[in-house]
Amino acid sequence: MGRALLDEENQPRALDKSVFVSEPLLPELNELMPMLQQIWERKYVTNHGPLHQRLEAELQTYLGVDTAMLFTNGTIGLITALKFFDLPPGSEVITSPMTFAATAHAISWNGLKPVFADVLPGTLTLDPDAVAQAITENTSAILGVHVYGTLCDVEAFAALGASHDVRVIYDAAHAFGSTKKGVPIGRYGDASIFSFHATKLFNTLEGGLIATPNAQDRERIYYLRNFGIKSEEEVIDVGINGKMNEVQAAVGLLNLRAVAGEKAKRRQLRKRYCDFLAGLDGVQTQAEQPGVENSEQYFPLVIDETHYGRTRDDIYDALKARNVFARKYFHPICTDFEPYRHLPIVSTRAMPYVTEVKSRVLCLPFHSGVSEDAVSVIADVFHGRR
Amino acid sequence: MGRALLDEENQPRALDKSVFVSEPLLPELNELMPMLQQIWERKYVTNHGPLHQRLEAELQTYLGVDTAMLFTNGTIGLITALKFFDLPPGSEVITSPMTFAATAHAISWNGLKPVFADVLPGTLTLDPDAVAQAITENTSAILGVHVYGTLCDVEAFAALGASHDVRVIYDAAHAFGSTKKGVPIGRYGDASIFSFHATKLFNTLEGGLIATPNAQDRERIYYLRNFGIKSEEEVIDVGINGKMNEVQAAVGLLNLRAVAGEKAKRRQLRKRYCDFLAGLDGVQTQAEQPGVENSEQYFPLVIDETHYGRTRDDIYDALKARNVFARKYFHPICTDFEPYRHLPIVSTRAMPYVTEVKSRVLCLPFHSGVSEDAVSVIADVFHGRR
Repeated sequence: MGRALLDEENQPRALDKSVFVSEPLLPELNELMPMLQQIWERKYVTNHGPLHQRLEAELQTYLGVDTAMLFTNGTIGLITALKFFDLPPGSEVITSPMTFAATAHAISWNGLKPVFADVLPGTLTLDPDAVAQAITENTSAILGVHVYGTLCDVEAFAALGASHDVRVIYDAAHAFGSTKKGVPIGRYGDASIFSFHATKLFNTLEGGLIATPNAQDRERIYYLRNFGIKSEEEVIDVGINGKMNEVQAAVGLLNLRAVAGEKAKRRQLRKRYCDFLAGLDGVQTQAEQPGVENSEQYFPLVIDETHYGRTRDDIYDALKARNVFARKYFHPICTDFEPYRHLPIVSTRAMPYVTEVKSRVLCLPFHSGVSEDAVSVIADVFHGRR
Repeated sequence: MGRALLDEENQPRALDKSVFVSEPLLPELNELMPMLQQIWERKYVTNHGPLHQRLEAELQTYLGVDTAMLFTNGTIGLITALKFFDLPPGSEVITSPMTFAATAHAISWNGLKPVFADVLPGTLTLDPDAVAQAITENTSAILGVHVYGTLCDVEAFAALGASHDVRVIYDAAHAFGSTKKGVPIGRYGDASIFSFHATKLFNTLEGGLIATPNAQDRERIYYLRNFGIKSEEEVIDVGINGKMNEVQAAVGLLNLRAVAGEKAKRRQLRKRYCDFLAGLDGVQTQAEQPGVENSEQYFPLVIDETHYGRTRDDIYDALKARNVFARKYFHPICTDFEPYRHLPIVSTRAMPYVTEVKSRVLCLPFHSGVSEDAVSVIADVFHGRR
């Protein structure tokens, strides 16, 4: 049960149960069962059923937005959000290469061109100066990524969006429940897309959501999610099937009640990690952003060999040998992938920062299932103790 | 409980419980529960989990194909299948307008052009002669639809595909388990896409599947379904998130065992319907196709006012007044919808047959939940009895 073994042959002590970067929060089955019974009795298992509607309403309140539309997964949400804004075919959407492939793919699926710009040291979010440099007359949107839950410079992007008349959209897959100066993150920009994948703090097995600060967006996103169907007689748009089924919604309704507790445990874990990492030169923890409530989605590090003396890959391997599976997240980056390899990264520097930092990033296991033993094993690795 | 009421005020007798065209087949919750317990214990809730793999293997056998890839829904499956064939951007895909909007939308989402061709009287499937007429040097694929489970003329399309070097793909949303001359329907053409939506004979709440007769197709469809990820280091394609979660897969594994029983009940219901419709001039039941095992997905009718004396809409309204909710399926057709309204329907006739027949089609309730009372009420409507 997660207890560390003391190995007699002088091998490094390893956890007897592997620990991973994420572990899904799951409701008690005895709480889920009555909801399944209701779904089964109604025989209403998808197509905006009552639980879908209830979860959507609860999330709209939780996220403090005026439009909140559930999706079967975050990628379909992102694809639909870009469709919603009717960006000119072939126009350019500026985004970060330091993100999951789905961010770039959603641009491509809409017949738009991804343009990659550099990230900022410190936050690893899209650099507004690089974005300003990347904007052309063909730019139609900026797609910022709140990577690891670290928030983009939303004020800078709002200004850029206004001055260049382009949309500002956020991939908020990592930023569930974040606020800045008390304002919910989904109120910044034209739309924010959340992910409720199993790896996320709040999950619906698979799932996602488009949030916008405008109540009038609701209607068309609803149509787009359901094939563009406006009525029995009318299909007004090239929509998609983005509907979440009732069982996913049931899991979501129960998980939403457990988010606060999970978040509190992750905050304690963050403190434990920060405590033993504090003295280590060259190991940079996630940027603390003043006035920001962190989503507690990830615990990312930037490991600088020149100061720390060891590489990210050293640490990764040493952890793995002890059954601790950290992730080199995000490495490779989008511009390393075949579909985007030919594309440059616009930067204010001679050499984009993202191409350096990608080989230094590491996400540690970050969830309530990380035991004290695991923390102790991880601390040993970072301090070079057996 | 579905008993008909005899109304004393000389109103038509109506069912006390509404009956709809479809009703989802759902497994017993006490059988589902142990599977959920296993999923919860594994904490493996999506990303090609063990149940996903098991269902995929079982469906590959059931459908008699060499590649069977599960999807979160049929539309995402259809979109991914078209992507898989690398059809030239902007090229033309010939399809039937008598289909669900998703068929045409999947073409559009791939940056391809839908070209609509007429359907055949009798089967209401895509007319090979009209398709031959519609083929140009820009045609890259024929997307046939086994509408209502009535099979396309697969031999004719195979010949057309070969002679014009275009792909032949089937929207098999309605054709789960169909065979022709003992050959499973998924073995015809380059790929067939099934739907496992709640409205389908076999359902996974929401769901879908790409089937192909070639085992080597498996690998790339697998990548495309999961963001184009080939390995931790490689993303080789503009993929999507098409994964089915483990709970959907669990429902599927149990439902697959119940399909034969449901199908047998629907066969009996088909016989009951055919019996009371047999004497009615101008009411055409689904084409019987020699050597074909019907999927028992729908019970479609074509109601010809000039012979029957009453319109489809009359019957629809009369049924509705008795709490029987038939569907005018597919009416409107794709070319009636805003995104495709400007497009012609290629036909061998002066006036495409589909534009006439669309106002005559009606699907009756067709599932094991249709009671004897319901059948009797429906029979009364068709025979003009109170």
